[in-house]
Amino acid sequence: MSRSATTTIRVEWGDCDPAGIVYYPRFFHWCDVATWNLFAVCGLPLIELQKRYGIVGFPLLEASATFRVPSRPQDLIVIATSLGPLRRKTLELRHAFSRDGAALLEAREVRVWAHHDATRPNGLRAAAIPPEVVARLTASAPA
Amino acid sequence: MSRSATTTIRVEWGDCDPAGIVYYPRFFHWCDVATWNLFAVCGLPLIELQKRYGIVGFPLLEASATFRVPSRPQDLIVIATSLGPLRRKTLELRHAFSRDGAALLEAREVRVWAHHDATRPNGLRAAAIPPEVVARLTASAPA
Amino acid sequence: MSRSATTTIRVEWGDCDPAGIVYYPRFFHWCDVATWNLFAVCGLPLIELQKRYGIVGFPLLEASATFRVPSRPQDLIVIATSLGPLRRKTLELRHAFSRDGAALLEAREVRVWAHHDATRPNGLRAAAIPPEVVARLTASAPA
Amino acid sequence: MSRSATTTIRVEWGDCDPAGIVYYPRFFHWCDVATWNLFAVCGLPLIELQKRYGIVGFPLLEASATFRVPSRPQDLIVIATSLGPLRRKTLELRHAFSRDGAALLEAREVRVWAHHDATRPNGLRAAAIPPEVVARLTASAPA
Repeated sequence: MSRSATTTIRVEWGDCDPAGIVYYPRFFHWCDVATWNLFAVCGLPLIELQKRYGIVGFPLLEASATFRVPSRPQDLIVIATSLGPLRRKTLELRHAFSRDGAALLEAREVRVWAHHDATRPNGLRAAAIPPEVVARLTASAPA
Repeated sequence: MSRSATTTIRVEWGDCDPAGIVYYPRFFHWCDVATWNLFAVCGLPLIELQKRYGIVGFPLLEASATFRVPSRPQDLIVIATSLGPLRRKTLELRHAFSRDGAALLEAREVRVWAHHDATRPNGLRAAAIPPEVVARLTASAPA
Repeated sequence: MSRSATTTIRVEWGDCDPAGIVYYPRFFHWCDVATWNLFAVCGLPLIELQKRYGIVGFPLLEASATFRVPSRPQDLIVIATSLGPLRRKTLELRHAFSRDGAALLEAREVRVWAHHDATRPNGLRAAAIPPEVVARLTASAPA
Repeated sequence: MSRSATTTIRVEWGDCDPAGIVYYPRFFHWCDVATWNLFAVCGLPLIELQKRYGIVGFPLLEASATFRVPSRPQDLIVIATSLGPLRRKTLELRHAFSRDGAALLEAREVRVWAHHDATRPNGLRAAAIPPEVVARLTASAPA
């Protein structure tokens, strides 16, 4: 059984568009926030990951979302994030957004473990996720 | 054969994250920009759509992207947007991002034609896409 | 003596630019968040203000900031917001940002009480701040 | 006489808030865009500045704006940017935003020339602006 985390965010005025509902790219921002929170909950805070492993963020391979109900300013949203399939260099995150227990949207991210690589045109190189990171992400007990 | 449009954007410093590459939610912002541009190219500018049909944006049902190559500040990106399946109340947009002819990412949006509806808790009501909008979106010749 | 409020925010990865520090326009986003929080603390939540008074946001007349120390991902920032001069149609907000008690930046906003006005080209009309709003904003005891 | 540059931006749906007008922090984003454009016009594109001088962005010391008229989706805005006082380590940028020749807002930024400095808690160190950068910024003829 893999790890999960809960992130709570409040929708702000500036997150919403002229329709009065959340401008949808913001939901992907919150997926990013929720992903880092899952790592922190697993004892792998962003700053440590950078210092210890030299990773440069956690670039996306895929991102998707299915929207059910719009959100508005001051809505309190809970994001339940869980780890999906973990592969050698990539991992999947699943984010279920809800408000007062009602489903708002579901999102999914596939990310790759990546280092700086000055020799490559795009400056990034995928690498195997370190065993101790895998161990922490898959531990059944709190870190 | 349905309509298509090309949108060019420049990646700015503030679009990028500490990894020095575009913060991925920004790509969905550019999908939104490209969608409105496709409508404008079809003779349906945003402001007209709001005035004539009372729509409130174009809420998302689905959004997804597959990322191939990261982008950096000052990159000039071309977004080729085409119309996918058009249904009674929804339509699909396909966005192919490239730089100097090389594919960067592909994205897909499914959006619903929606009006304000004060009687509903979420304040929105899906409606059939007006025939003249369908006509303009599917016309083979420039509007 | 006027009212004040404290807002705590965490700097996220996506708030920062390729220099690894907060992209400065985000600080103004947090000023906006902190302003609505001050109103909520005074018993004037955003949603109520819109419903009861028909205001459309709280447009800015002036905004400024003086930056002292940069902020980075995962920083926990406290924003102390207080009400500055209150005039007939405008009010001033002062935001002091700190981290672990150390000053990061100070910002200032002057905002105008505004209603929709379809007869004006810009669609907004300034109006006098209602007396009960003034009363709540200037009450010395918690609402 | 110092250099100036003109930057044109289009207001997008996602730049606006539930009041239907530009969410004000976006104007500071456009100041940042206009600043880099001024540098590019002076023959100092962002990428060159980073490679040649190792600067890390152009951190802000001060930012301010005075807003006159709100902007809405699809507005075409022209930003006239000029260089204000140039000091040893800092420079000032002045941005005048207009639409169809009518003034929308004026903004001002004071920025510092900064390098990475791993020995400092905030990781940045101010430095003198290199003479050749000063020369290009103050040249009266096009670079």
